[in-house]
Amino acid sequence: MPGTQFDVVAIGNAIVDIIGRCDDAFLERHGAPKGHMRLVDTATIGSIYGSMGPAIEISGGSAANTAAGIASLGGRGAFIGKVAEDEFGRIFRHDIRAAGVAFNTPAVADSSQGTSRSLILVTPDGQRTMNTFLGISTDLDQGEVDPAVIQAANIVYLEGYLFDRDEAKAAFRQAVDIANKAGRQVALTLSDSFCVNRHRDEFLALIRSGIGILFANEGEILSLYETTSFDEAVKRVGQDTRLAVLTRSEKGSVIVSEGESITVAADPVRKVIDTTGAGDLYAAGFLFGVARGYDLSVAGQLGSFAAAEIIGQMGARPEVKLSHLARMRGLIG
Amino acid sequence: MPGTQFDVVAIGNAIVDIIGRCDDAFLERHGAPKGHMRLVDTATIGSIYGSMGPAIEISGGSAANTAAGIASLGGRGAFIGKVAEDEFGRIFRHDIRAAGVAFNTPAVADSSQGTSRSLILVTPDGQRTMNTFLGISTDLDQGEVDPAVIQAANIVYLEGYLFDRDEAKAAFRQAVDIANKAGRQVALTLSDSFCVNRHRDEFLALIRSGIGILFANEGEILSLYETTSFDEAVKRVGQDTRLAVLTRSEKGSVIVSEGESITVAADPVRKVIDTTGAGDLYAAGFLFGVARGYDLSVAGQLGSFAAAEIIGQMGARPEVKLSHLARMRGLIG
Repeated sequence: MPGTQFDVVAIGNAIVDIIGRCDDAFLERHGAPKGHMRLVDTATIGSIYGSMGPAIEISGGSAANTAAGIASLGGRGAFIGKVAEDEFGRIFRHDIRAAGVAFNTPAVADSSQGTSRSLILVTPDGQRTMNTFLGISTDLDQGEVDPAVIQAANIVYLEGYLFDRDEAKAAFRQAVDIANKAGRQVALTLSDSFCVNRHRDEFLALIRSGIGILFANEGEILSLYETTSFDEAVKRVGQDTRLAVLTRSEKGSVIVSEGESITVAADPVRKVIDTTGAGDLYAAGFLFGVARGYDLSVAGQLGSFAAAEIIGQMGARPEVKLSHLARMRGLIG
Repeated sequence: MPGTQFDVVAIGNAIVDIIGRCDDAFLERHGAPKGHMRLVDTATIGSIYGSMGPAIEISGGSAANTAAGIASLGGRGAFIGKVAEDEFGRIFRHDIRAAGVAFNTPAVADSSQGTSRSLILVTPDGQRTMNTFLGISTDLDQGEVDPAVIQAANIVYLEGYLFDRDEAKAAFRQAVDIANKAGRQVALTLSDSFCVNRHRDEFLALIRSGIGILFANEGEILSLYETTSFDEAVKRVGQDTRLAVLTRSEKGSVIVSEGESITVAADPVRKVIDTTGAGDLYAAGFLFGVARGYDLSVAGQLGSFAAAEIIGQMGARPEVKLSHLARMRGLIG
């Protein structure tokens, strides 16, 4: 859109990921639901960290990963989220800015909570299970939502995880309000099927009130409509939204738009290393495509491409410049 | 050796690596000598970090990587090194213990210096250039060298980098003294050719005083003897030591023992991702082999194998269990 400073401004939890490998028995022993994100307290995160194997630290956070993905594709991204002025906060700030994303939410100088971190346990099948201590992220409130940034973005992208805290939910609603008034598109990801379970009615009301673009994976959309039929969920979401994008792992994705469904194949993944960030990077590719005026099917292909790239590496931030690869593939000009 | 608790106790700087990618021009702009380790102050590390791309954090430190490699091969390793009680210190302690290495050096509670960290810049050719802020590592002194641990180890392995600080050098000499009195083998790595330049005479005196096993790469051994001829360096080191292991990247390694030279081929590397830790893991494989009584040529093959594995991944700590792979390859029983 001409005249906008950013293609996308993303709002979410600012998290540093601590990623290690484990087997399924380890997840069971610690009561971690495989493939999901759960919120944990300091005692639990300490207990898991103390018994898990060696780890690596990489900046993460769902919406933040999407913003980094958009920048990697050559887009202009901004991020709003809360860090503390500690080592993890400095790592998060450095990495997102170094990725080319505008990030100016002030850090909290004195925080006993510390910057949000997530212990991500990757099982031999490449599946990731997240144990997130929200820390200072819970302090994200309306004060952090800069109206100028929202107004300057083509699309405002919000992560459903924000609904897990009242202050963040208020910030979320404020951002939607500013975007609507400025005539900007609003996009939402449902984040996690457990998260949908926690906030189903509010999510449905929000979606029906006019979210522009809805992202959900199969588990999330089935949970939203409390159905076991994907076709039923497609029909229902088509009635509730103008544009929905449903991702189905290796089965590809389905774009539901004005009564029509477009199926996009998944990109082949040479070797599944770590699925962390697959959904976040799909959203990055799709939103970049929409912001730059590509057809929905091309936007979907950009999503599949970016998701496949992130699955082939550790962590949810692209190690390589996606714009270069996408150009080689002929996906963008 | 029967009766010993550890195969190897390693002593060195306890470092967390901050690894990112850059091009050669970036190194030049920051005056970082490609392929080498240089010591930097807080201002320099801040300036490089501020302008480098996104990074990942992984525990490192040369001798610590070797200890982790020995544990990964199924050996019993211990490490002595100094961390501060901060986030990086907790990361270092967690990772080395989780790797199966005994690590009990007390952390320094109140340190303005912080735990040692190294900005590692990886160029497109996979070569790594290190900018190390030693922080609290410089405080390693004789108080940290636990005689019981040294006496309980078959081999004491020391990194040459310790010579960059007087207190650490004193700790180094004390460890050698305890090991000699207990009849333990002492192994030394020259660490870096710039490091050899800084301490040539002391290294030569130490080696001639009876180091059991000397590790050096080609650049380091040429620097030690101030020659450009590898053959000349092989001859000289054969006169100065009982056992020297000279690594030559893709040209493999040469084991010099009692007048004889054994050449060991390098293991093929599918794709060079990041050479960080190649020398450290070669040492791990070789020392594991010696400690477990394998022939020198098999020890060299274990070194080549472990080095090739670490070159194929980011960071200097093995992502996979090396013992499993080494068994599949028929290198160990």
